Amino acid sequence: MSDAYAAAGVNIAAATQAKELMAAAVRSTHGPAVLAGMGAFGGCFDLELAVPGTRPILVASTDGVGTKTLVAAALGRYDTVGQDLVNHCVNDILVQGARPLFFLDYVAAAKLAVAQVTAIVGGVAAACRAVGCALLGGETAEMPDVYAPGAFDLAGTIVGVVAREQLLPRPDVMPGDAVLALPSSGLHTNGYSLARAIVAQAGYTARPAILGGASLGEALLAVHRCYLAEVDALRAAVPLKALAHITGGGIFDNLPRALPAGLGATIERGSWPIPPICSYLVEQGRLSEHEAFHALNMGLGMLAVVPADAVAAALVALPEATRVGTISGEPGVRLV
Amino acid sequence: MSDAYAAAGVNIAAATQAKELMAAAVRSTHGPAVLAGMGAFGGCFDLELAVPGTRPILVASTDGVGTKTLVAAALGRYDTVGQDLVNHCVNDILVQGARPLFFLDYVAAAKLAVAQVTAIVGGVAAACRAVGCALLGGETAEMPDVYAPGAFDLAGTIVGVVAREQLLPRPDVMPGDAVLALPSSGLHTNGYSLARAIVAQAGYTARPAILGGASLGEALLAVHRCYLAEVDALRAAVPLKALAHITGGGIFDNLPRALPAGLGATIERGSWPIPPICSYLVEQGRLSEHEAFHALNMGLGMLAVVPADAVAAALVALPEATRVGTISGEPGVRLV
Repeated sequence: MSDAYAAAGVNIAAATQAKELMAAAVRSTHGPAVLAGMGAFGGCFDLELAVPGTRPILVASTDGVGTKTLVAAALGRYDTVGQDLVNHCVNDILVQGARPLFFLDYVAAAKLAVAQVTAIVGGVAAACRAVGCALLGGETAEMPDVYAPGAFDLAGTIVGVVAREQLLPRPDVMPGDAVLALPSSGLHTNGYSLARAIVAQAGYTARPAILGGASLGEALLAVHRCYLAEVDALRAAVPLKALAHITGGGIFDNLPRALPAGLGATIERGSWPIPPICSYLVEQGRLSEHEAFHALNMGLGMLAVVPADAVAAALVALPEATRVGTISGEPGVRLV
Repeated sequence: MSDAYAAAGVNIAAATQAKELMAAAVRSTHGPAVLAGMGAFGGCFDLELAVPGTRPILVASTDGVGTKTLVAAALGRYDTVGQDLVNHCVNDILVQGARPLFFLDYVAAAKLAVAQVTAIVGGVAAACRAVGCALLGGETAEMPDVYAPGAFDLAGTIVGVVAREQLLPRPDVMPGDAVLALPSSGLHTNGYSLARAIVAQAGYTARPAILGGASLGEALLAVHRCYLAEVDALRAAVPLKALAHITGGGIFDNLPRALPAGLGATIERGSWPIPPICSYLVEQGRLSEHEAFHALNMGLGMLAVVPADAVAAALVALPEATRVGTISGEPGVRLV
């Protein structure tokens, strides 16, 4: 149909084709709790079936992947940003102690290319499957004149559940507790506008020695890690008091969100490895330490607060974790 | 902080200021079921407190407002698109019989202007308050190089709840059932790329006689109606079998989504008033009937299926509704 609509820059036929191609990926994430999925006006999820007998607290978060979409578009790699998005959202609700139930995605561009949308949503579905989360709904939008040619945006919403007594952070975080770090895989999904400006001259195909063979584009596209399995292992081994997912604003903005009012933390320089891509950006962009730790995670993907006497057991349970600091009685985060 | 980050086109200070201005609007939507809202990594909602004793089916939907954002930006009116978004999403889950619990929004632009973001989120919060829905979270993103200058995107996710025995559509929709229509306020949130192309020459400030004094911009910006109160009244009065929210794809695509396989409907031309803005677009854009009813709602905001013998009672309960058609044993929607 609709020559008039096509002339206005919206191709309903292409959108329909993309929907059909996505359907299999979406359905692959559905378990018995999904009562209505693609095609329904609203996806329906039977909470009682998913978590019988709990007094459910629902935990929800919406996020995007920022201008990492531009790196993906420049490299023509559309299958990883969906994983970035889901993993980011899973980590955000993990911090409250919740496990994922379902996810809804939003993909928009000036023009939807079927192959690209299918790859993007395929990545979303793959990451959902990996954590047992239903991809319950979503929206694809063609918005000529809103998006720059070739650019796209990708956002999503996760809904998870936690029993009331498992909610994090716990209120008993106290000075002297240890701060552990789980390593990030790179920038995750924050700092990309800054990173793109810094690498603009060298270009995504440059392979600076510090990256050990990887190109700048490859290092920047490294998939945002999901910490669900690691947090499960940590919770099983020690009394986990709090988690902080290090996203936009870095450790300075994100660790305090997980701490009781009045408390802060000291983080010890040199106690964990800084990813080569972060070191490269700091050096090439002549970033101050404050700028670097505000815009980038600097290798600290997820911070966990545990009692000081539980550190040894925590590091046995999670050998890749490192102790990076200590909770203090002064508000704010200080690098020492 | 961060001259480097500001030079890269991301202004964290402005984003922080916008967040503070939005906080009051967001909090105004929170009831006792909201355990953690702004500032938390994930918003927390106590389902048991909101709907004690039901076996809950959660119903979720993600949507955007399409290029209606461009009309809003052109007119400098940022307080209505948030209402469009929430009302659209409320209507989508109403169709499954669900009532809203909480909402999360996503606002993105090349550059976030504090006043604009505040107005947009203020509109989201106002529409949430109006239906007793908590604005539980959201994300604002500055994405230079992704968005066209001055343009923005607005998407959102709603999560609602319905008791299993109240799920819609009911399976007993049958040939001979009546199709009622609730009037739309205009284009709602679909067909804007087509509409913008058609009005481009006249411009948003033109006041064609058919609009009775309103400008094209005003008519196009009319807020997407929410049908929660109307559907409540209808359900209280008659056995409501199915609802179809008429959005992108019009009656042809949306009514069948609410019907059992094998059934369709005939819709009678002339049985309801067509909004002046739709008539204007059809005439100026020389749209075929098929195009018009595919891209636009043509005045049919929400369709309801009720038994034929319940029509009189339904029209007493909802005087602004009209009977526009009949369920048939042939698949598809036909205009007769």
